[in-house]
Amino acid sequence: MSSLSLDFIEKLKAIVGEDWVVQGEDLVASYVLDETPPPIRPQPHLDVVVVKPDSSEEVSEILKLANQYNTSVFPRGGGTGLVGGCIPTASGVILSFERMNRIIVDRDNLMAEAEAGATLRDLLNASDEAGLFFPPHPGDEGAQIGGLIACNAGGSRAIKTGVMRNYVRGLEVVLPTGEILKLGGKLLKNNFGFDLMQLIIGSEGTLAVIAKAWIRLYPKFPATATLIIPFESRTTAVKAVPKILHAGILPLALEYVEKIPIERSAEHLGLKWPCRVGESFLIVILAEQSNEALYSQCERLLSLCEEFGSLEPLLAESREEQEYILKIRSEIYSSLKPDMVDILDATVPPASIGFFMDEVERIAKRYNTYLPSYGHAADGNIHVHIMKEQGWRMEDYDKVRDEIYAAAVGLDGTITGEHGVGAVRRKSVDKFLNPTHVKLMKEIKRIFDPKNILNPGKVLP
Amino acid sequence: MSSLSLDFIEKLKAIVGEDWVVQGEDLVASYVLDETPPPIRPQPHLDVVVVKPDSSEEVSEILKLANQYNTSVFPRGGGTGLVGGCIPTASGVILSFERMNRIIVDRDNLMAEAEAGATLRDLLNASDEAGLFFPPHPGDEGAQIGGLIACNAGGSRAIKTGVMRNYVRGLEVVLPTGEILKLGGKLLKNNFGFDLMQLIIGSEGTLAVIAKAWIRLYPKFPATATLIIPFESRTTAVKAVPKILHAGILPLALEYVEKIPIERSAEHLGLKWPCRVGESFLIVILAEQSNEALYSQCERLLSLCEEFGSLEPLLAESREEQEYILKIRSEIYSSLKPDMVDILDATVPPASIGFFMDEVERIAKRYNTYLPSYGHAADGNIHVHIMKEQGWRMEDYDKVRDEIYAAAVGLDGTITGEHGVGAVRRKSVDKFLNPTHVKLMKEIKRIFDPKNILNPGKVLP
Repeated sequence: MSSLSLDFIEKLKAIVGEDWVVQGEDLVASYVLDETPPPIRPQPHLDVVVVKPDSSEEVSEILKLANQYNTSVFPRGGGTGLVGGCIPTASGVILSFERMNRIIVDRDNLMAEAEAGATLRDLLNASDEAGLFFPPHPGDEGAQIGGLIACNAGGSRAIKTGVMRNYVRGLEVVLPTGEILKLGGKLLKNNFGFDLMQLIIGSEGTLAVIAKAWIRLYPKFPATATLIIPFESRTTAVKAVPKILHAGILPLALEYVEKIPIERSAEHLGLKWPCRVGESFLIVILAEQSNEALYSQCERLLSLCEEFGSLEPLLAESREEQEYILKIRSEIYSSLKPDMVDILDATVPPASIGFFMDEVERIAKRYNTYLPSYGHAADGNIHVHIMKEQGWRMEDYDKVRDEIYAAAVGLDGTITGEHGVGAVRRKSVDKFLNPTHVKLMKEIKRIFDPKNILNPGKVLP
Repeated sequence: MSSLSLDFIEKLKAIVGEDWVVQGEDLVASYVLDETPPPIRPQPHLDVVVVKPDSSEEVSEILKLANQYNTSVFPRGGGTGLVGGCIPTASGVILSFERMNRIIVDRDNLMAEAEAGATLRDLLNASDEAGLFFPPHPGDEGAQIGGLIACNAGGSRAIKTGVMRNYVRGLEVVLPTGEILKLGGKLLKNNFGFDLMQLIIGSEGTLAVIAKAWIRLYPKFPATATLIIPFESRTTAVKAVPKILHAGILPLALEYVEKIPIERSAEHLGLKWPCRVGESFLIVILAEQSNEALYSQCERLLSLCEEFGSLEPLLAESREEQEYILKIRSEIYSSLKPDMVDILDATVPPASIGFFMDEVERIAKRYNTYLPSYGHAADGNIHVHIMKEQGWRMEDYDKVRDEIYAAAVGLDGTITGEHGVGAVRRKSVDKFLNPTHVKLMKEIKRIFDPKNILNPGKVLP
């Protein structure tokens, strides 16, 4: 028996239309999960109704109704999050944005106006069709704009062009109390009052529902290449990273991967990792405005890496070759997934990733386990994976995770550079975030959402 | 007779040392003004004491004391603001950061750790000495880091690399209640909790005192050039701007200036504007990683502008030649200053600057006045100057300003892209900012500063 009254459901139907209110455990099942690894995924509450609004106005009506009925509302994007941020942890309404997926590209302003439910793939395609480019690649292409912004998604292309936050120029949001608020717009500069848009970006759907966004696009980079630069050891690979940046080479992506997981990923795809030498690899995507600029960057990059003892590099220039490499890189996650307990995203000052990875190695030895680590080297954002294999004891999980966190924080890092807090990391907020910061967060939450109806049980401890 | 008790002053001296507490109208006189044009500058309160802390801890003690005594505190940067943001509008303490001016550059992390009182000039020099580069040029080089961040300064180099916000990676702030809070750090990614750092950036010293910042630096651009591209008319010059960006040319700066003010500025400096043709000019700074890339951008830029009817361009490559041009550009403000009533910074979507300037021209005609306009064309951020000359009637000021604002807002713009609200634009907050936005701002202010002691009378209406 649902705790959601018939009366409430009828009113929801009156707002969005009968077809767009979905009930019943079978039908809501695909709306209650995300990509959080099962061993740490919170149990979703199944007494939920999925509602699919078509406009900010409908979102507003739903939130007003939810306030009136004191019912929780869980906004949901593409469900690609890794910390249970959209999992309903109480009875209530799941807001699904699949109908709000329109994108208009304004070529003259180099901006996209995208509704919350448009996917990253939609945005990449729409930009491409307009002869423009959305530089970051913050994760799975099924992720939706609303979720990407709510979680300030990062990904592998932050070093040249930044994370989601840097691209968002305007938002239309609906406050938990129902007011529709436009913040910013197609503007490159805006200093009119406190920047509530920046506060909402990264607040993981707890302060406001994002309905629409204005996103800055860039001209295409006509010349791109992907390089794999092998090294004998992690130490030398990692040491080369700050020197590359220092030399004025600002790649679109600068990734660090290791032999075992990358070969496993290739195998998982039925492909072959093209490098025959090396244990540790830097994957570098260069993107420039001309072939001359590209080749001059390539040359400098390779000669610099040679100084650090790099082995025979591999250069991919055709689109197919580049995609082949990136496919293998991007599937490491899937190939590890069956045995994965958790994927961490602690982030340290970029020059400290070597120290951080040494510490992770010590922790792995101490717990007699395997902690494959790879990721966005130039951002100081290395994903450490806690795995079930090799005599793993689930009772060690909290200790292993917290020792990794402590290592990052000890290096002036943060426990989450990308994935956010969601439901899963809330305990870590009390442990690793300044209590004054937490107190201000709680008070800000109360201002925006006095009845605590919007995505309760997330972010705030 | 001062309203500040002897007891209070003695306690201030006990915190920072007797030498660093300055009293008396003569001695405080240089601490109570900023660059706001006199006709609209608020009257400073002269019953103030200037206090010069040397550390975050001293700032914290001062704020605790001020809370206890219910005394206002006005943090002050380089005094280069244009809206009275640091002018003491009540009796109280002026916090001056001249002793907190240390900068440490961390070459491996491409970051500067700068105290609030370090100037923009200090930062540019320290970066240069470390072989690195701080790309934006947000205004006067005497501006201080704390003020630049508090006001999210913009300037002429936002198009390629963004405004101050994009460079700030960490802050050490002191809350009005005295707690010291570190937010972020030498981190390129951080999603741990609500991003209070982003909220504080641009809050104009009303939510927290910025004591220290971690600022991202970049490799130097070895190849730079400055071009002046003349056009017969504003219309064609302005039309070329979005096409330049579209073509993949991302200059460091893309400024629009007109003949009368730029020639007047040159004359004011005893120099000569080097262009003999044209009424309207684009000044473009290109900055690239190699000469090949620079020349290829130059060529494309010039051939594209030719399609829009540009006249004989002028290319400056030597440092001296480039500085000559930029000096004339940057002194337009000073040359206009004696007759200036106000300098506006309304900002519109970049592709709308032509429409905006047409509207400004109509307003000028309607009030029979001269409204020289120039600025950061590619950012949609054109500075309109309200001038005293040519039969100006001061009683028209409010109307002229508000009509310009209304024109910007009508084009989906904002009334302030750079200068902020300060003391001067508070009335415009009520008029042009969404009341829900204002309400949230007031409630956030109350959370951070329950006794309203920090920079009262600013930003909030």
